[in-house]
Amino acid sequence: MAAPNLDVVGIGNAIVDVLAQADDSFITAEKINKGTMSLIDEARARSLYERMNASMEASGGSAANTIAGIASLGGKAAYIGKVADDALGKVFAHDLRATGVHYATKPLSGGPATARCLILVTPDAQRTMSTFLGASAEFQPGDIDENLIADAQVTYLEGYLFDRPQAKDAFRQAGEIAHKAGRKVSLTLSDPFCVDRHRDDFRSLIKGHVDILFANEAEICSLYQTKDFDEAAAAVWAEADIGVLTRSEKGATVITAKEQISISASPVAKVIDTTGAGDLFAAGFLYGFTHGQNLEKSAKLGALCAAEIISHFGARPETKLKDLAAKAGLV
Amino acid sequence: MAAPNLDVVGIGNAIVDVLAQADDSFITAEKINKGTMSLIDEARARSLYERMNASMEASGGSAANTIAGIASLGGKAAYIGKVADDALGKVFAHDLRATGVHYATKPLSGGPATARCLILVTPDAQRTMSTFLGASAEFQPGDIDENLIADAQVTYLEGYLFDRPQAKDAFRQAGEIAHKAGRKVSLTLSDPFCVDRHRDDFRSLIKGHVDILFANEAEICSLYQTKDFDEAAAAVWAEADIGVLTRSEKGATVITAKEQISISASPVAKVIDTTGAGDLFAAGFLYGFTHGQNLEKSAKLGALCAAEIISHFGARPETKLKDLAAKAGLV
Repeated sequence: MAAPNLDVVGIGNAIVDVLAQADDSFITAEKINKGTMSLIDEARARSLYERMNASMEASGGSAANTIAGIASLGGKAAYIGKVADDALGKVFAHDLRATGVHYATKPLSGGPATARCLILVTPDAQRTMSTFLGASAEFQPGDIDENLIADAQVTYLEGYLFDRPQAKDAFRQAGEIAHKAGRKVSLTLSDPFCVDRHRDDFRSLIKGHVDILFANEAEICSLYQTKDFDEAAAAVWAEADIGVLTRSEKGATVITAKEQISISASPVAKVIDTTGAGDLFAAGFLYGFTHGQNLEKSAKLGALCAAEIISHFGARPETKLKDLAAKAGLV
Repeated sequence: MAAPNLDVVGIGNAIVDVLAQADDSFITAEKINKGTMSLIDEARARSLYERMNASMEASGGSAANTIAGIASLGGKAAYIGKVADDALGKVFAHDLRATGVHYATKPLSGGPATARCLILVTPDAQRTMSTFLGASAEFQPGDIDENLIADAQVTYLEGYLFDRPQAKDAFRQAGEIAHKAGRKVSLTLSDPFCVDRHRDDFRSLIKGHVDILFANEAEICSLYQTKDFDEAAAAVWAEADIGVLTRSEKGATVITAKEQISISASPVAKVIDTTGAGDLFAAGFLYGFTHGQNLEKSAKLGALCAAEIISHFGARPETKLKDLAAKAGLV
């Protein structure tokens, strides 16, 4: 088997974020579930945007944020995800390529617009997301580049993609290609409501195809339908080789059949916006994992990257993570 | 004469900012004048963007930033400036209206795209701007809403607009309408190179029409062709009633025929990006001035607003300036 040329290839919804500050009363009045991701259609996206505060636009997408983070750490990374052939699609492609990521998925012509996620950041720094999937939902098995997957140590899948049946097929296909090539498959659960919408599919994908599972407390508890984190954590390693469970300010726990390692969160002077925290934790962990680090050091690198992203507005790093990691002695 | 319903109406180039971090070596390689604003055409905008780092998009425009700042302070403000009827134009209009600004300039159809400013932020937090004027340069005297100008205590003009002859006429026209209605006219010089391109026009506009002049050290020295700040400062009050001269970390000086007041800069934990510093100083000063504050308190409010804007990426406030000003005892 040839040595892989890539560290990680990510597959996800290619989304541009529209970030604005909002009061809790606005979230309540708009009847949105605070702290989660809701799917909305184009008309709702337009009317919600009209009522939102002044915003800033930045490339996002959960797996794309992770992949950009891996590139910022100096890793070799690629991304697969669908934008439209429009202004926001060009912004998305520019921002990913500019970080050094290989990105060559063909943009959609004549269909829905590039996906956007309206992100409301409340004074407590929590983010509440309303996503119009647009072109990203037109992602199909034909968009999977088999060579990229066979060439990457880890294929990283975003749970959000499960909201479209065609994307589920693409996921299973990617998992099979990766394993056939002797590579690892990783999945992030993305959101407790997303888990709730697709619990059985997730369980069957994890059992059959996933080596490294990322989830936060709410997601893993939703997957195993329990309120007890320890109970949910114990269920993980029976189904995935490695469970990486993030717990916000409580740090993170990595679970395998052999060990359970807990690390604390990296300190942050002031939490500004938690958008991308989980995505960047995954970036740090996967960079460490694909560069021969042990689980503890990989998790610490994850915590460091998460701390950078929550210290400012937006879900892509503002500081070169490679320099930050070197300063912290983690690479 | 009826009491004005508006505090300030601003006229300027309606621009969306594309902000990215850059090393000094990139600025040098691209042969751009660090710390200044250069005009570029659409082809250059495209090729420079391709080589830039991953970016974030946010509404900008010097006078528009000032007007958004005045609205964030709780002031009644309006804006006149031209976007195209395209995606970025909609973003610009949304962000301004969302802050509570009255904005009703008709978008341009079938002409150039909405203006964008490629802003490179170097590790020293300085910003270097390359602007494609696009639709904003199609601004004409017919776009001036006479009622708005007659209805505002202060009409605020952005020097950058001087790069188009038609806009110069619109400026003079706005100045005449304002004075006829018994209102004040204010101008910001915007950029030392802009001053250099239009020195005589600026001098004649200031003498004939300007009551409150904003400039930083480089701009006022360029206007009076001297290297000595004190010499330049002394020349100001002979031509404008009030000169407001900003000096970065050295604070600011306000000069009239009767007095000269110097204030220090507001403290900032870490300067992240100086984009919008002058614009937000003007916002604070004009809010104070139109709310019966003396020159010193108005300047201190300017310094406070400038400090907020340089503490994060981007040229629009992330914190409600009204709350900030109240906390500092300045309103």
